[in-house]
Amino acid sequence: MAIGRSKVVVVGTGAVGAAVAFDIVMNNVCDDLILIDINKEKSWAEATDLQHSLGYSGSKMRVKSGEYDDCKDADLVVIAAALPYITGQTRLDMLEKAAGIMDSIVPAVMKSGFSGIFVVITNPVDVMSYYVHKLSGLSANKVIGTGTALDSARLKYHLADVMSVDPQSVHALCMGEHGDSQIIPWSQVTVGGKKFLDIINDNKVRLEGFNIKSVTEDIKKIAYRIVNAKGATTFGIAATTVQIIKAVLRDENKVIPVSAMLNGEYGEKDIYMGVPAVLNSQGVKELVEYHLADNEIVELKKSIEIIKEYNDKLKL
Amino acid sequence: MAIGRSKVVVVGTGAVGAAVAFDIVMNNVCDDLILIDINKEKSWAEATDLQHSLGYSGSKMRVKSGEYDDCKDADLVVIAAALPYITGQTRLDMLEKAAGIMDSIVPAVMKSGFSGIFVVITNPVDVMSYYVHKLSGLSANKVIGTGTALDSARLKYHLADVMSVDPQSVHALCMGEHGDSQIIPWSQVTVGGKKFLDIINDNKVRLEGFNIKSVTEDIKKIAYRIVNAKGATTFGIAATTVQIIKAVLRDENKVIPVSAMLNGEYGEKDIYMGVPAVLNSQGVKELVEYHLADNEIVELKKSIEIIKEYNDKLKL
Amino acid sequence: MAIGRSKVVVVGTGAVGAAVAFDIVMNNVCDDLILIDINKEKSWAEATDLQHSLGYSGSKMRVKSGEYDDCKDADLVVIAAALPYITGQTRLDMLEKAAGIMDSIVPAVMKSGFSGIFVVITNPVDVMSYYVHKLSGLSANKVIGTGTALDSARLKYHLADVMSVDPQSVHALCMGEHGDSQIIPWSQVTVGGKKFLDIINDNKVRLEGFNIKSVTEDIKKIAYRIVNAKGATTFGIAATTVQIIKAVLRDENKVIPVSAMLNGEYGEKDIYMGVPAVLNSQGVKELVEYHLADNEIVELKKSIEIIKEYNDKLKL
Amino acid sequence: MAIGRSKVVVVGTGAVGAAVAFDIVMNNVCDDLILIDINKEKSWAEATDLQHSLGYSGSKMRVKSGEYDDCKDADLVVIAAALPYITGQTRLDMLEKAAGIMDSIVPAVMKSGFSGIFVVITNPVDVMSYYVHKLSGLSANKVIGTGTALDSARLKYHLADVMSVDPQSVHALCMGEHGDSQIIPWSQVTVGGKKFLDIINDNKVRLEGFNIKSVTEDIKKIAYRIVNAKGATTFGIAATTVQIIKAVLRDENKVIPVSAMLNGEYGEKDIYMGVPAVLNSQGVKELVEYHLADNEIVELKKSIEIIKEYNDKLKL
Repeated sequence: MAIGRSKVVVVGTGAVGAAVAFDIVMNNVCDDLILIDINKEKSWAEATDLQHSLGYSGSKMRVKSGEYDDCKDADLVVIAAALPYITGQTRLDMLEKAAGIMDSIVPAVMKSGFSGIFVVITNPVDVMSYYVHKLSGLSANKVIGTGTALDSARLKYHLADVMSVDPQSVHALCMGEHGDSQIIPWSQVTVGGKKFLDIINDNKVRLEGFNIKSVTEDIKKIAYRIVNAKGATTFGIAATTVQIIKAVLRDENKVIPVSAMLNGEYGEKDIYMGVPAVLNSQGVKELVEYHLADNEIVELKKSIEIIKEYNDKLKL
Repeated sequence: MAIGRSKVVVVGTGAVGAAVAFDIVMNNVCDDLILIDINKEKSWAEATDLQHSLGYSGSKMRVKSGEYDDCKDADLVVIAAALPYITGQTRLDMLEKAAGIMDSIVPAVMKSGFSGIFVVITNPVDVMSYYVHKLSGLSANKVIGTGTALDSARLKYHLADVMSVDPQSVHALCMGEHGDSQIIPWSQVTVGGKKFLDIINDNKVRLEGFNIKSVTEDIKKIAYRIVNAKGATTFGIAATTVQIIKAVLRDENKVIPVSAMLNGEYGEKDIYMGVPAVLNSQGVKELVEYHLADNEIVELKKSIEIIKEYNDKLKL
Repeated sequence: MAIGRSKVVVVGTGAVGAAVAFDIVMNNVCDDLILIDINKEKSWAEATDLQHSLGYSGSKMRVKSGEYDDCKDADLVVIAAALPYITGQTRLDMLEKAAGIMDSIVPAVMKSGFSGIFVVITNPVDVMSYYVHKLSGLSANKVIGTGTALDSARLKYHLADVMSVDPQSVHALCMGEHGDSQIIPWSQVTVGGKKFLDIINDNKVRLEGFNIKSVTEDIKKIAYRIVNAKGATTFGIAATTVQIIKAVLRDENKVIPVSAMLNGEYGEKDIYMGVPAVLNSQGVKELVEYHLADNEIVELKKSIEIIKEYNDKLKL
Repeated sequence: MAIGRSKVVVVGTGAVGAAVAFDIVMNNVCDDLILIDINKEKSWAEATDLQHSLGYSGSKMRVKSGEYDDCKDADLVVIAAALPYITGQTRLDMLEKAAGIMDSIVPAVMKSGFSGIFVVITNPVDVMSYYVHKLSGLSANKVIGTGTALDSARLKYHLADVMSVDPQSVHALCMGEHGDSQIIPWSQVTVGGKKFLDIINDNKVRLEGFNIKSVTEDIKKIAYRIVNAKGATTFGIAATTVQIIKAVLRDENKVIPVSAMLNGEYGEKDIYMGVPAVLNSQGVKELVEYHLADNEIVELKKSIEIIKEYNDKLKL
């Protein structure tokens, strides 16, 4: 009997894909990691550089650059390919070019015989996840977008900082579009297990100056400032993606807010958006549907409309 | 009583410094990490991106961008600043510009009252480590260059691959200059604890085609190919640097080949070069002096002459 | 400058203390670990056995058996000493003997000049934590009992199992006495961030047969069954204790339900009981006071009365 | 496609088996862990106690008590069953009783359809590993004894302590019988990659008082002292066993001294003894045969004779 090996392929070894790959290796996430890029010398260089890190890190992985054929027996393929970010562009502006990238990747992956899980990072991620689901023909549970997972990490970090607690003691998330229309369902946020809205009421002096609306804006805008300064956001999205990969590979049943297909939740169907989901070896096992406040529902519906508008522009 | 916190400062947040910082965070290496760069928006962006990774990674560190004043109570300062690599340039060609960078960093760090350990990555690293020792006025044990540690990791990975064993089961290293004159002391290499020269004799069929001289050349040249393809080597040097940092912060007494000051070993003094050293909270606790083969001594002396020639060009 | 080392002392190397020590070593929790026991050959044997584990585990700690004088510069002292469990005995039955053990340990620790944090495991833990606070003269934030942390871990595991999610995606806890009168504040329980009471309403078919009252009883009783079968509970309490130690040593500000001194919460003062607390290098930084349901308050008050009754029996 | 899960079964949940199981869980070594014991309430209690540790540890495993049928799809079965240690007994004295335990376990495991790797801890381990190989009908590479791995860990720790270096920087091992006739091949020992015999010559003052013969005796005797004080050695053997398990499950090709079948090495065949072996998913991939010194060969042959004598007493 051969002991099962877990295999991950990262397609696209730009700044994001390379950071995801490094995080995978540092955390010993799988047994085999394959890097694919149009620029084969680039994917070779990233894989070789990662191999050298194995001399000291104690990680026990095998890393190499490869071809789409390597996806055949992969458990998970990460699509990290992206066009360069152009200042001023919104995530949805990038729709057409991004779809073209998916056209070049997804059929090539499927042709290998791949039947695993896709994790899509490419923006606009909710639309692209939907598109990858359609293009691949895989059931919706097998296509996961990183969605608002990174925004949620930023929100958790921010609230942890405000309240002086560990980010792991904060439950907070962003929902809807990974983009300007996303919402924060404040009714569901807890710190140390206590409703954050109660905390605000109970700590008026301590939280003077804390403003829910400006937090929502700040979380959205911080990515733009990082991108302007370093060309891309890389470490946050890498850690986010690796959490999703681990939940799948280790069959964790962990609840993470990702871009997933709605099937009746909040009265919607046939749309990918950021929503808390139970992730395991099947990909998305089920969604967690909150009892949102009325104003949160209104805002979420607006975000849904924006995603739908773009989904409609896809050539399917 | 306040519980002691460990603090690391990374100066220079280009590709190498950022990768080192990410590795530090992924591995939860210290309590406080401060990033410093001439471009303050860049160090802010890297630190903020790292903060976002904390939302999922479970690492318990505090990360922020800062100023040289933050070095005051740091345990360790990593100098990762570098000029862009220009194709065709040897490591020693970069001497003068690199010294200028040290002039801008080291006195500023020392002015803060810093009395910890320097880890120098900037090339030509043997010469720059020597220069940082002189500039800072710190005792030589407190200034460590990454030296041939990365070359050694590459060699370990390569021999592990050839022999189909885990890199941790290979003892191999490069010595002398981190550059074209470095040597591999084959008399000291073991795989699974067995002398590699005995392995070659005992496995003539299996190791047909294995050629000691071409390995030595390949290890030197692979960095150039990676740099041409991705602009820098980042992950290997990050993992290497983090091993050194951990050995210091956790007082490990681990033996790692680094650039360290000789004090009579191989008949030499007042020169930094790649040599196995016991690293702990004092920095370099002591060197391990091998009984090298005669031809290895001859080659090592040549490498030493090259470093000396460049040390002499420093304005001290 | 000497790099700060973190030091933990475990007093009592019976089944619980030894398991705590092994977990500390496996997780590389601190730099120095000292084991103390009345039976010096036993603490020597446990320390030596742990040293041998360092040959393979990669943990970088220093472990040895020691004396109370070693507490002088310790950051944290764990009191894991206990009388053997006698079947049928309730935790509170053990009061008098347990107090005698504290009398033999705490003054000896304080005499060393210790000024760090105590973590008390010895049952009845709420009463003993209160007693250690009084005996030691340390401020209440510096004395933490493991309290209902282990019961909470059991509850989290149980709900995770029922709901098929990762335990880390469950927020649930027990409060009040670590004993038969403890309560589960169901109004505060969430799974995947969703109120568990809403989940019960939304999933009547799936959760048919799930009964809140019997869970409360099961969580209390399972410890007795484990103790009958293996003589003690060891791994759960070890993992629980190590979480508390890490929160303190790494200044995590993590929220964990522990036995801590109330200061006005739920209208009570001068009593230790299980309550969510923010733990950092100060020990208990602050408590998180929930808005409990009325029936939960009633039950909690009953638990508080029981603890008070026993506190009154202490000779202070 | 179902993602491959790794599964380990531990048979025997006494002090050693329970410690191995705890180490497996703390280190997140596999996906599924099954505990089997004659006393089913005991294996239930150990498994349940381990489940509770998952509430805090962040480990993502599934642990339960089970039956021999659970071995069917296991990757690896650890045999940790043992008779209680009786003072004064040598390891070989226990032969007959130990063989009886194997008779009760191995056929039951094989009946399930098991085709994975056995790791045998039960003493006399070299003889029992040989016996399990014969009883099971599995090829010799699939049956690994812990052999002198623990003795080697003790030796590494001791030399690291003497030389003030990290145990990971020491290459040292014991060979032959895991018992009184074992040898230390000093010609192969290195510290920081330097031959230890050279170190002794180069450091006569520093190593005054260091005596090779007394080290050999001390390493053998320390187990007896630990057993007398705590009833068993547990943590060292647990860490040792987990290293072997990881090497197999992650296909590491790591070199570890274990009890393995000789096939011509040192002129011997059809005998299990402690010898460095490359471990991967096939179990023992190959042995590393050293060029031992003449006196080491003589001593090793004596140890081999002792094992053979006992092998001959097995009813096969």
